[in-house]
Amino acid sequence: MSHAHPPLDLAAHFAAMPPVAAMAITVLDNTGDGVLRLHAPLALHVNDKGCAFGGSLGSLMTLAGWGLATRAIGAAGIAADVFVADSDVRYLAALYDDLQAEARFAEGTDVAAVVARLRGGSRARFVVDACVRLPDGGVAASGQARFVAVPRR
Amino acid sequence: MSHAHPPLDLAAHFAAMPPVAAMAITVLDNTGDGVLRLHAPLALHVNDKGCAFGGSLGSLMTLAGWGLATRAIGAAGIAADVFVADSDVRYLAALYDDLQAEARFAEGTDVAAVVARLRGGSRARFVVDACVRLPDGGVAASGQARFVAVPRR
Repeated sequence: MSHAHPPLDLAAHFAAMPPVAAMAITVLDNTGDGVLRLHAPLALHVNDKGCAFGGSLGSLMTLAGWGLATRAIGAAGIAADVFVADSDVRYLAALYDDLQAEARFAEGTDVAAVVARLRGGSRARFVVDACVRLPDGGVAASGQARFVAVPRR
Repeated sequence: MSHAHPPLDLAAHFAAMPPVAAMAITVLDNTGDGVLRLHAPLALHVNDKGCAFGGSLGSLMTLAGWGLATRAIGAAGIAADVFVADSDVRYLAALYDDLQAEARFAEGTDVAAVVARLRGGSRARFVVDACVRLPDGGVAASGQARFVAVPRR
């Protein structure tokens, strides 16, 4: 049996959250490579040193991971809440340009197993890798976060 | 030789950073216990589940650590830039109330040695512990971040 589901409107989800709306995030075109990319303008995220605020980099990576998971679960037709459980971030280089974050499931993640657990009514845990790019393709910040998805009753 | 320095106006520093100004942060009264406390209203930081957005909790803890260090270094009369190097955050409980973060130097931190290094023209590294409280005094999120301070030339 096959289910067709409209693509999840992540932009609408983000716009509905005041702190996220204030970040002026754009969901970049999904290239179908299993990576979610988000963009935010430097002007809204600049710190006292003229570069991107570390807190904004961390937030954007958390959101990219949340969006990646929410999109994958929504695409399977499952209603679940996605929570971040913990995260670690390494700030590697100052970023003097717009923020572009990307998130992908950690190597070895079995997304089908996550979906199957949720469909069976159990919560599911998984790990997401994320980074914020430098204009030259290098990395301004990288991180890993663990999430838990809980089926809605 | 003793130097008197006016208290550093952290609120003005925060207001000058667009992403921080958008967070509507208040610096709570300094009780002189070596802890910096910041407040932010839930209404601006609420997520799709009606509780505080994880990214906001992480940002507020990063800012509390940055403010703690910037205040301590400024109080010593030193001009230095403070950067976050890495951080880890554990999200422990959903917070349905205003955000209150607190930051303190990690146990064993020798703040006088940090100041002496900066005064000698060298960069200094140190660790800050932070958390966001629940209304009942419990912990919504806790984290640790490593910072580096670089003397301004």
